[in-house]
Amino acid sequence: MNPQTPAPLSERELVLTRILNASPEKLFRCWTEPALIKQWFVPKPWTIAKAEVDLRAGGSSLIVMRSPEGHEMPNPGIYLEVIPNKRLVFTDAYTKAWEPSGKPFMTAIVTFEDAGNGQAKYTATARHWSKEDREAHEKMGFHEGWGICATQLEALAKTL
Amino acid sequence: MNPQTPAPLSERELVLTRILNASPEKLFRCWTEPALIKQWFVPKPWTIAKAEVDLRAGGSSLIVMRSPEGHEMPNPGIYLEVIPNKRLVFTDAYTKAWEPSGKPFMTAIVTFEDAGNGQAKYTATARHWSKEDREAHEKMGFHEGWGICATQLEALAKTL
Repeated sequence: MNPQTPAPLSERELVLTRILNASPEKLFRCWTEPALIKQWFVPKPWTIAKAEVDLRAGGSSLIVMRSPEGHEMPNPGIYLEVIPNKRLVFTDAYTKAWEPSGKPFMTAIVTFEDAGNGQAKYTATARHWSKEDREAHEKMGFHEGWGICATQLEALAKTL
Repeated sequence: MNPQTPAPLSERELVLTRILNASPEKLFRCWTEPALIKQWFVPKPWTIAKAEVDLRAGGSSLIVMRSPEGHEMPNPGIYLEVIPNKRLVFTDAYTKAWEPSGKPFMTAIVTFEDAGNGQAKYTATARHWSKEDREAHEKMGFHEGWGICATQLEALAKTL
């Protein structure tokens, strides 16, 4: 009802791209099966205390991260788009369909493309409503954190 | 990544309910066909200069309102859920799938229930990310504006 002209999307997104030694199918399993999510989704020595997944457009996800000191950090969100083995889109703008959250921070688009030789091109894009949130996310350690996680993800997927 | 505890949903939403003398099917047509949208979607003497509708979850909508003085006010958004003749959910949090807008202001849930005798129970709910936005929307004239539009909607649907 009161649209504002946003900054260009390129100034509001963060992107991580990697060629991983695992198939799109195995990476997708690691992203969507709770028992697997718990093994890689946060840089160690943090752990995942809880992973609940309702894997469909409009379905909720709740991932609770736990710090080495035992502090728990819940990350509620919903899936906006689910294309098996290819693409996942989710956001923290809703805690369930369709309840607005306390603060819409980001929308993530994760894609898995077959790169041949049992490899996949893995792209994780985090889009934000403002440049300020993008900058805050970068300072929170987006590149390092998502990079470490990609390495953990690859290591787990190779065992499947 | 950085969730805040929001105010209870009841404090962040606005609701309009009416029994209308038209079937859910006709009301749904008025809500989703551009040629019909143009006839009722804004309180007269405002008009709709443009109505573009890609009616599917993830599809964009663009409705441009025009004031009596000729000032145009674009309202870009996307549909989150489309259940023909029953339910529409849309938001201005994205301008298309999945590009965050400049300002996520509201998510609207519109339902059409058969009330017998050719009538429908019509419920329009506007949910906001903050109490402040709910209050702003109320002061912008939510109840009066959506109420006038409901009357215009009913009048049009009865002619179909």
